[in-house]
Amino acid sequence: MNTLTVELAERSYPILIGPGLLGNAALLDEHVPRRAVLLVSNTTVAALYGAALKLALKDRPIIEAILPDGESYKTLATLARILDVAVTNRLARDCTVVALGGGVVGDLAGFAAACYLRGVDFVQIPTTLLAQVDSSVGGKTGVNHPGGKNLIGAFHQPIAVLADTDTLATLPPRELRAGLAEVIKYGLIHDAAFFDWLEVNIDRLLAGNPEALTHAIRRSCEVKAEIVGRDERERGDRALLNLGHTFGHAIESATGYSTWLHGEAVGAGMLMAAAMSRECGLMSATDVARLRALLHRVGLPIAAPDVSPAVALEHMKIDKKVKAGRMRFVLLKRIGAAIVTADYPPEALQTTLTGYFG
Amino acid sequence: MNTLTVELAERSYPILIGPGLLGNAALLDEHVPRRAVLLVSNTTVAALYGAALKLALKDRPIIEAILPDGESYKTLATLARILDVAVTNRLARDCTVVALGGGVVGDLAGFAAACYLRGVDFVQIPTTLLAQVDSSVGGKTGVNHPGGKNLIGAFHQPIAVLADTDTLATLPPRELRAGLAEVIKYGLIHDAAFFDWLEVNIDRLLAGNPEALTHAIRRSCEVKAEIVGRDERERGDRALLNLGHTFGHAIESATGYSTWLHGEAVGAGMLMAAAMSRECGLMSATDVARLRALLHRVGLPIAAPDVSPAVALEHMKIDKKVKAGRMRFVLLKRIGAAIVTADYPPEALQTTLTGYFG
Repeated sequence: MNTLTVELAERSYPILIGPGLLGNAALLDEHVPRRAVLLVSNTTVAALYGAALKLALKDRPIIEAILPDGESYKTLATLARILDVAVTNRLARDCTVVALGGGVVGDLAGFAAACYLRGVDFVQIPTTLLAQVDSSVGGKTGVNHPGGKNLIGAFHQPIAVLADTDTLATLPPRELRAGLAEVIKYGLIHDAAFFDWLEVNIDRLLAGNPEALTHAIRRSCEVKAEIVGRDERERGDRALLNLGHTFGHAIESATGYSTWLHGEAVGAGMLMAAAMSRECGLMSATDVARLRALLHRVGLPIAAPDVSPAVALEHMKIDKKVKAGRMRFVLLKRIGAAIVTADYPPEALQTTLTGYFG
Repeated sequence: MNTLTVELAERSYPILIGPGLLGNAALLDEHVPRRAVLLVSNTTVAALYGAALKLALKDRPIIEAILPDGESYKTLATLARILDVAVTNRLARDCTVVALGGGVVGDLAGFAAACYLRGVDFVQIPTTLLAQVDSSVGGKTGVNHPGGKNLIGAFHQPIAVLADTDTLATLPPRELRAGLAEVIKYGLIHDAAFFDWLEVNIDRLLAGNPEALTHAIRRSCEVKAEIVGRDERERGDRALLNLGHTFGHAIESATGYSTWLHGEAVGAGMLMAAAMSRECGLMSATDVARLRALLHRVGLPIAAPDVSPAVALEHMKIDKKVKAGRMRFVLLKRIGAAIVTADYPPEALQTTLTGYFG
């Protein structure tokens, strides 16, 4: 097992990475308070891992909120349903919300933990690669709105994260590939050597090699923790983590969150950001080609032919990164170095939109 | 005009107290960023003060969310409605939510500001005495749940509070009296001299004397700011502010939030807490009698004959102050000194319930 500590001003918490974590009672005793637990999961994941986790949580009173599976349920209505369960069962302020599932479950459970009694303890047990490398660090929680993704939410840090790599064995291959898009992102924005390592090890990762996955998860969390530690509330550097997300959110939003997986949209979005960086004279053509090749090997989509440039632009305008009316983008100077800027030639954006959207 | 600064670790903000504030464009320029404003109010208050405020906000783009008036609308559904207005109008992260109204408007608007894009700026313009002395300090926002009051919410500090004493002239006398219950609370828990001052000046306050009101508001905010400054997240001392609230919330919850005003319930609840303190051998009979006499002069209810002791107890158990299954109470050692404790003889609670509930 690998342990990583996320250092935050207010408080620090551990991320444990390795096999067999969610059935390890001794480990849970160390990280989940021995009081009432509100277990939030979805029908798919609860069927696979719910029993093992409940057994390991032993004599704690356990209340369950098992949600339908899917991004379309990441809404205020589902949040209300979780809160109803908490209130109906009279959970007190000393309870712990435990999220067992992917990003949707984690974001909903975390937001419920942030809101219930104005904040209770929260433990994450992410079961997808995307959630393990993304939601584990940063404390972002929330829900979607018909008008845009993650528009409603809170910052709420977990007290512990248990990333059990065994759960990746049951992950559909398409979701593993989507998770790898975010892993590649950490190399792109901060660590050229990690990007090199990914180019060498991508086939092992795709084959589900546990050691390779553990290294990739750990390095991804480290990079994210370093950036978030510098900027918990997204006033500056943290925005670098949004590489590919302005384009990606537009794809997801325009297609109703139903066609593309989040990681797939981010993957295509990163290539669009790289292409736009190239248009701005920032990134080399070689680096853009390396990224395109790696995404291709992973089997990720590298354009969004199902969304028109005009529709994409419309959806980008509601994105949270709009400041004083001007869209900001995360652009790449080269592999391993990113910047946030609102200073770019409008043609660079237009050319990218025309080149990558349908 | 009086100015008070609330000192908080993360950030400080000013509370301005005095007449003519909400129509003062120069003052608003100082405290409300000159960008888009989401003005949240209710139909009653918007009709009285909306036009003057909008005029003073001048050239800022103003989006309005005008809610129905009443505590029964302090729900997740109304929160969703405010957020819909924000999303539909594509308000960006640099917008400011301005709350114009009493506690319900302030709690809803503050929670919306906390959740929208995971947090935007928030300015409070409280128009009731209760909101001026209570919601102005502390950053508590939230909504009720059918199962209990304020069970869902967030801590979100405003960037400024403008307590315009002119607005109290249009406040129904019953609401002024209810607000005075919270004013009395600050004397009870922290400042015996202020309690003495209230005994001397209560008729001037009831008559709406502006100088007396300004002093009472200022001293109330100072006491609350001092306590909150020591304990922003309610881990310790801050719980003292809940004097009378465990009993009071039970009254409100049992009567469906429709019969009693919040301040009335807190007024009766404070006397119950004093009586229970007396039963525990803490407070003197003289001090209990002084409190009873002052509440009587204000014209506040001093018992809850419309709720049975058993029903009251049931509603108290869902209260947020339950820790590890044991109810905690704020009790009084004397006028000016309060403690939080879960250590009391069960008979003291039972005698109080029997003595003050129907």
